[in-house]
Amino acid sequence: VCIPGWFARPTSTDTSHDAGSRRHLREFLDEMRAENIRDHLRKFTRLPHLAGTEQNLQLAEQIKGEWLAYGLDSVEMVPYDVLLSYPNISQPNYISIVDELGNEMFNTSLSEPVPEGYENVSDIVPPYSAFSAQGQPVGDLVYVNYGRTEDFFQLEREMGINVTGKIVIVRYGNVFRGNKVKNAMLHGARGIIMFSDPADYCAPGVQPYPDGWNLPGGGAQRGNVLNLNGAGDPLTPGYPAKEYTYRYNLEEGVGLPKIPVHPIGYHDAIQLLKNMGGDIPPNNWKGALNVSYRIGPGFTDSFSTQKVRMNIHTNNQVTRIYNVIGRLRGAVEPGWRPRRSIVFASWDAEEFGLLGSTEWAEENAKVLQERAVAYINADSAIEGMYTLRIDCTPSLHTLVYDITKQVSSPEEGEEGLSLYESWHKRDNWTDDRDAPRISKLGSGSDFEAYFIRLGIAAGRARYTKNRVRGTLKNHSCFFISYPVYHSVYETFELVERFYDPSFRKLRAVAQVRGGLIFLLADSQLLPLDASQYAGSLTKYAHTIAQLGQKHPDALVKYGVSFDSLFSAVENFTVAARDFHERLTTLDRTDPIQIRMVNDQLMYLERAFVDPLGLPGRPFYRHVIFAPSSHNKYAGESFPGIYDALFDIERTANPKEAWDEVRRQISIAAFTVQAAAMTLTPPA
Amino acid sequence: VCIPGWFARPTSTDTSHDAGSRRHLREFLDEMRAENIRDHLRKFTRLPHLAGTEQNLQLAEQIKGEWLAYGLDSVEMVPYDVLLSYPNISQPNYISIVDELGNEMFNTSLSEPVPEGYENVSDIVPPYSAFSAQGQPVGDLVYVNYGRTEDFFQLEREMGINVTGKIVIVRYGNVFRGNKVKNAMLHGARGIIMFSDPADYCAPGVQPYPDGWNLPGGGAQRGNVLNLNGAGDPLTPGYPAKEYTYRYNLEEGVGLPKIPVHPIGYHDAIQLLKNMGGDIPPNNWKGALNVSYRIGPGFTDSFSTQKVRMNIHTNNQVTRIYNVIGRLRGAVEPGWRPRRSIVFASWDAEEFGLLGSTEWAEENAKVLQERAVAYINADSAIEGMYTLRIDCTPSLHTLVYDITKQVSSPEEGEEGLSLYESWHKRDNWTDDRDAPRISKLGSGSDFEAYFIRLGIAAGRARYTKNRVRGTLKNHSCFFISYPVYHSVYETFELVERFYDPSFRKLRAVAQVRGGLIFLLADSQLLPLDASQYAGSLTKYAHTIAQLGQKHPDALVKYGVSFDSLFSAVENFTVAARDFHERLTTLDRTDPIQIRMVNDQLMYLERAFVDPLGLPGRPFYRHVIFAPSSHNKYAGESFPGIYDALFDIERTANPKEAWDEVRRQISIAAFTVQAAAMTLTPPA
Repeated sequence: VCIPGWFARPTSTDTSHDAGSRRHLREFLDEMRAENIRDHLRKFTRLPHLAGTEQNLQLAEQIKGEWLAYGLDSVEMVPYDVLLSYPNISQPNYISIVDELGNEMFNTSLSEPVPEGYENVSDIVPPYSAFSAQGQPVGDLVYVNYGRTEDFFQLEREMGINVTGKIVIVRYGNVFRGNKVKNAMLHGARGIIMFSDPADYCAPGVQPYPDGWNLPGGGAQRGNVLNLNGAGDPLTPGYPAKEYTYRYNLEEGVGLPKIPVHPIGYHDAIQLLKNMGGDIPPNNWKGALNVSYRIGPGFTDSFSTQKVRMNIHTNNQVTRIYNVIGRLRGAVEPGWRPRRSIVFASWDAEEFGLLGSTEWAEENAKVLQERAVAYINADSAIEGMYTLRIDCTPSLHTLVYDITKQVSSPEEGEEGLSLYESWHKRDNWTDDRDAPRISKLGSGSDFEAYFIRLGIAAGRARYTKNRVRGTLKNHSCFFISYPVYHSVYETFELVERFYDPSFRKLRAVAQVRGGLIFLLADSQLLPLDASQYAGSLTKYAHTIAQLGQKHPDALVKYGVSFDSLFSAVENFTVAARDFHERLTTLDRTDPIQIRMVNDQLMYLERAFVDPLGLPGRPFYRHVIFAPSSHNKYAGESFPGIYDALFDIERTANPKEAWDEVRRQISIAAFTVQAAAMTLTPPA
Repeated sequence: VCIPGWFARPTSTDTSHDAGSRRHLREFLDEMRAENIRDHLRKFTRLPHLAGTEQNLQLAEQIKGEWLAYGLDSVEMVPYDVLLSYPNISQPNYISIVDELGNEMFNTSLSEPVPEGYENVSDIVPPYSAFSAQGQPVGDLVYVNYGRTEDFFQLEREMGINVTGKIVIVRYGNVFRGNKVKNAMLHGARGIIMFSDPADYCAPGVQPYPDGWNLPGGGAQRGNVLNLNGAGDPLTPGYPAKEYTYRYNLEEGVGLPKIPVHPIGYHDAIQLLKNMGGDIPPNNWKGALNVSYRIGPGFTDSFSTQKVRMNIHTNNQVTRIYNVIGRLRGAVEPGWRPRRSIVFASWDAEEFGLLGSTEWAEENAKVLQERAVAYINADSAIEGMYTLRIDCTPSLHTLVYDITKQVSSPEEGEEGLSLYESWHKRDNWTDDRDAPRISKLGSGSDFEAYFIRLGIAAGRARYTKNRVRGTLKNHSCFFISYPVYHSVYETFELVERFYDPSFRKLRAVAQVRGGLIFLLADSQLLPLDASQYAGSLTKYAHTIAQLGQKHPDALVKYGVSFDSLFSAVENFTVAARDFHERLTTLDRTDPIQIRMVNDQLMYLERAFVDPLGLPGRPFYRHVIFAPSSHNKYAGESFPGIYDALFDIERTANPKEAWDEVRRQISIAAFTVQAAAMTLTPPA
């Protein structure tokens, strides 16, 4: 992760700098070797290294040593004491089917079959839901499809099933698992079981690992089930988890589920599902297992006296974690340096709720808000073998196209083609424009605090699967990552055998990430594009207005209009155009002139941040981009309006719900207008 | 009001600029004429000009015309539609004593006797409490001294009187009137009457107006009774009250009292108080009227069947107001201009809750946060005839001393003395240092949103009374302004005859305000002093720790320590010292170097702002300075800790209350530490 910092110290103010910079960029890109990437991946995946463990600290120390050897000016380990969650070693977690006497008729497996080559590895943590509540609830099962808001709504309103006091079982996929858990709690369930269905985790025609990249029946998806909404450490929301920091009690902690949660694979899921009673659900609730997916509650016929018991003993505990923070100072000494400073960060405890990155953002919020130009995220570099995937803020679009034109296609038989061309032909932005598709940032990785809370321009790059239906059966595959995600089968060999045997795709991703950082750090004029932002805002305004116009009568009845939003977007568009027009006549030899416009570009993303936050989510402050309240993985544009409209479908009080839509439109219009003002010249 | 803005455009980068600047400053100060100030005051005080009226709009237009004539680059009227509050002309407000049949035995006066020369002035608004709820509650009176938190506590816990269902009567003074109203509501009162007691509003040996500057018995203090805590317009908290802005319903509005409120003078107060029954209160509850100040409830003996009825018909209504905003661009053209841009603002609707200034701050928050160097407030320039009073952020202390040394004393017989010397001998900062005393900023004027919400360095200057007991009998006079404050007797003649017949004091105040702006706008290096901030923080940390140490056993029992705060303040002190040391070797010819340190100075105040706000007060975000929750007028240092400690004395749950103290100490320590980091050089 890299944050090109401010405090520019140009060695010269003329534009010859940029020509030199481009030459250095070429050398920098060519320097990257697939073989080095392979070696690094091998080294860092040999042993388990759960956050908070000795093994993970050793890797952090190793990163520190390597960064120093690479020549960074300084590297430090930055510790925080955050709430983590581990299974209890002496009391394993599992789920049982019990008879009326409480005898266990069936138990789910305690661990996954370990893949070849890893038989002697100790400390493989079994599948568990981090931060699950402890407990041994017993109850009837209810199947609720993906456990989405709309699934629970359909279950209660259309199927007439109340889950109060029940244990719900839902399939993984479609939305972030924490959202499923929240929904189960909201509806009164006593526990929730999540399973990976082959419909979502096995691509047709692909073998299970190790013969292919599909999820085996014994594999299960780990992962935290928090609803942090950007809070970071659950016990120190808003502030870094240092020694002196006030900690809330566990009961007051942010986003901790109050019910037991556990993940299982599809072999175990069959046993729980096969004897379920109740109605047959609609087809879109059915997965690919050879069971009827009845919704319950409870088992059928001769099994009707049996119940399900969860046995969950996972412990929350405050644990020390370590970020590694390296710094490269902006140009001042002889020899090439970037114009601006670069901060490299290796974040600890990402899997426990983006804790390392969020705590560091909290500790450094003021300096970052004043000085940070951009944040480039580096998380899983490959989730498929089809083409490039970029999620970034609109002001980075132009730079992304620029850099991908300077990187070679990693695909076999595309020698001489640029990554841009390779990407473009595979994923054209058809309905909008003839260019490779770029997506919105959602959440679920460490850019969250930097982008959504602090308003720092951000982006991420990885190789991905084909977003078109068919590669995975389910059309929502875009959000569910790759089949063996968070299972024991997510190994070095998975990449080496299936995803990227030549490691050229990973090199291309590294070149994109590195190139973005290079040009952000070294260009005299910041390569950020306000007009691209204007274009995106225009598109988003139309999209959200269309969503509202599904209810034409209500719009009239409750006096809801999107006019103010369109008007603000129009003002922004004019301001952005004028801004870039002024840049063409800028005196490039005047350092104060350059600094003034660069400040405006740097602070543009900041202008979209509302310190009051989104409704009920004080740490999600970006008015243009945030995850929906119903799915942390999905980045929505105008999330405040989106969430308000989402509620319209399910509200008992339409007047109040439409009032909230009006309020959110007003906030969005104001925010865009305020951002437009930051692009105007001094009065 | 002036906001020197960023976007510096220096005509030259060498230090000769500063020498020229000093010469211009001298000319600028000498240009100010007492006679002009007199004429302006005369012109603007001739007619009533309540916010939202035609008369006030005319004055705004006049200001616009004059500013344009003075040569500002642009002047605009900026409208907002905010909630104002006016008496109902056809149903006047008053308070009655009624017999058991509801017959009115006594009614308070409907207006104040108009002073000589104003007999033919129409549109004088009668005394009223703006934003009072409507209603005609009938009940027994209870006297609750000043109506402070501690007064109500004493009444309930020590005197055993419950005010639920009663009408309370309190004297003005000591705390902001809105706090009195909030307390009355919290304790269940059905209405509240506020009167001006001669103990607080008549200085000994001074005649009532027009023969002196004391408050006559028929005078009463107008003023709003909101509890906005910085929200601005009650219906649009956080956002500017524009046409498109979502407005809450009146019932949801911020800070609107739910009970009737009315102000009266001491002639009327005697009638309400003289027959009251109940116990005689302690001496510090007694004012200077010839009554016994019995606390009630209700009247005594033969009057015991009588009750008090309030008749309040005041209307809230959304009304258009207009700020006048003038701009002077920073240097670029020939002829002298300041280095930085200056914004002049004439705020509308200050008396209705700082509405004009807060709405503009809301509308321009992003640009202000990015670019504003400082805010200098201009509200009542004279509240006494003793010496200068400065309330400002610590980083302005050095500049205030600098400029007051360049202004002449306005006092008779002090020819040749500077204002600094005159001020120093009258109000030395004895316990801390040998220099004129400078106070903390509280609230109650238009700097609030700029300083406490946005974190822009701010200050104000005026002439004041002697803070030592005796000038006014009550030692808390510092908060209660001057006797005829907000009465019809606050006239041009009051200033001309009593406070400043030569208008030289007002000129000195103008020179201080103007000089501050001049040097903030025109100095190459910003005249802000981080080391003064460090010194103040050290003092405040000791003060708040001493307050905590009143409870030594509890500190041990609940594990409360101020060590983290002292440690953070020490880090800040070192960072500030190092910062100013680096300034001494700064290359003054390098515009980027200058810009870098000026950015750090400009953003220093911003670093003390916490977007999460103080507990329950989302728009009070300054962690170092904010009004206490119990008195809007009093600026407290470390207000979060202060409020938490305030509750300790009255809590039923000490564990929880001390937890809150610990939490607030942790937030304060973090904030100071984060501010220290902004002063460090680039990593």
